[in-house]
Amino acid sequence: MTFKVTILGSNSAIPTIKRNPTSQLVNHNERLFLIDCAEGTQLQLRKYRIRMQRIGHIFISHLHGDHFFGLIGLISSMHLLGRKKELHIYGPGPLENILKVQLEASQTELVYPLHFHPIKEGSSELIYENDRLEVVTIPLNHRIPTSGFLFREKTSKRKLIKDVVKNMDIPSDMFAKIKDGADFTDASGKLYKNEEMTTAPPKSRSYAYCSDTSYFEPVIPIIYKTDLLYHEATFMQDRADAAAEKFHATTVEAATIAKKSEVNKLIIGHFSTRYDDEEPLLKEAREVFQNTDIATEGKSFSI
Amino acid sequence: MTFKVTILGSNSAIPTIKRNPTSQLVNHNERLFLIDCAEGTQLQLRKYRIRMQRIGHIFISHLHGDHFFGLIGLISSMHLLGRKKELHIYGPGPLENILKVQLEASQTELVYPLHFHPIKEGSSELIYENDRLEVVTIPLNHRIPTSGFLFREKTSKRKLIKDVVKNMDIPSDMFAKIKDGADFTDASGKLYKNEEMTTAPPKSRSYAYCSDTSYFEPVIPIIYKTDLLYHEATFMQDRADAAAEKFHATTVEAATIAKKSEVNKLIIGHFSTRYDDEEPLLKEAREVFQNTDIATEGKSFSI
Repeated sequence: MTFKVTILGSNSAIPTIKRNPTSQLVNHNERLFLIDCAEGTQLQLRKYRIRMQRIGHIFISHLHGDHFFGLIGLISSMHLLGRKKELHIYGPGPLENILKVQLEASQTELVYPLHFHPIKEGSSELIYENDRLEVVTIPLNHRIPTSGFLFREKTSKRKLIKDVVKNMDIPSDMFAKIKDGADFTDASGKLYKNEEMTTAPPKSRSYAYCSDTSYFEPVIPIIYKTDLLYHEATFMQDRADAAAEKFHATTVEAATIAKKSEVNKLIIGHFSTRYDDEEPLLKEAREVFQNTDIATEGKSFSI
Repeated sequence: MTFKVTILGSNSAIPTIKRNPTSQLVNHNERLFLIDCAEGTQLQLRKYRIRMQRIGHIFISHLHGDHFFGLIGLISSMHLLGRKKELHIYGPGPLENILKVQLEASQTELVYPLHFHPIKEGSSELIYENDRLEVVTIPLNHRIPTSGFLFREKTSKRKLIKDVVKNMDIPSDMFAKIKDGADFTDASGKLYKNEEMTTAPPKSRSYAYCSDTSYFEPVIPIIYKTDLLYHEATFMQDRADAAAEKFHATTVEAATIAKKSEVNKLIIGHFSTRYDDEEPLLKEAREVFQNTDIATEGKSFSI
């Protein structure tokens, strides 16, 4: 089952010719989710051949422009291109009015249903779920209210071993119980242990998005043992003071969070425009947490 | 004295990889003015090496997204890059609140003075002037309140012929009158006709921007004999009905306005994304008005 993250942009603050500001696409089981939506995101979607109308849910971490100025344009293009499918947006409360005043000014009545879900900042909350996936918020520490997002697969049930169970006379109402781990005694009184009939489900996978934030240890229990973590690393460690003052993190801080959270892999991004070359940032992070990569535009990370 | 228009984008409705939506830069006497500001405009400025901080005045024609969604991003980048110079924005009234709610949401207090000037739609008004240039609005006919802009040089004074006047004993208070066309009689009673002492000033030049609008003859007296006219031409003539219904113009209609207004040159743009090839649009317009060109991104038109 597909579970991958595609980087659409990872620059901080300002769009440049080389790097777009933040946006990411999460594909889970061919359902598409967008995280943040900087100016230019709709063009990035075109560039990487992702059909915008397939996106069903958009999550906005906070209301700094480099994370949401492209949202109204994306919503409008979906409208102009005749979208029918509903769209769900999760973000800070004031975002609803920001969208509303702009749609009103152009006298636009969207041709598709748009549902806005305000995020309650400050605690980790379940904000979305389907049959296989749930999304919970990760409270972050930034200058304005900010939430990260944890995409976590639901624990799936054990799988029946067909060759074994097909010869057993199991009542239909027992299948669900066996998938949940129950043993089974047949009509003759013979006991079948669950592990004879089933195999363990695949491990539930998860992806955590933490941006923007200063070094903030309260995220650790929420993202503990996550498979893939994106953590902002606006500055190198020599600018740790500037980072703290601006509620941003350094390479070493991002890597330390990854290490303490025992995640499998770390991606760093949201680099300050002062860094043309990303290699020194990567090198510095890897000294603390080896399995680190750069959030390069257009790159996909499979989980 | 410089007077030129640079096309930053001229697509309609939606940004595409090939064509950005509307924005233009007017350089008059090295003062920079921006007309409309679609999503991505700040990147277009970078691409064409125009320093955003040199822009002093921004004119927004109307509140459809393809004409202003890039404004908040541009304003924010000017802030993040430490602008000091004041910025003036002229646009429909609701734009002020649209900017305000977004700046408030990010708790941004701009580090430079921003002055918003609401446009009174429906009549042609002087909205800006300096010592050499004035800008007046051009009421247009679109689905929502829309104004075009006429950039018109002020009539300059006659120029003194230095070799002639240096040998004459002219009192200092007379120079201004002579530049205005007065004759001069010296102490001995000798009369100098004005045309002996001065040459005619250069012709005042003008640029008219008309987008978005349907075919709308009331613009003609306002833009009469303008040197350069940009007029939207969203559709070819075979879609004249669709154009009228959507309050847009066709190639032939744009050219007809140019012809009836006796302008010197016409630029057409704001093409529907349905047209990949722009040549047929140009050809159709030129059949009505020969001196027509395409608003190609990155191209500058000197007046």
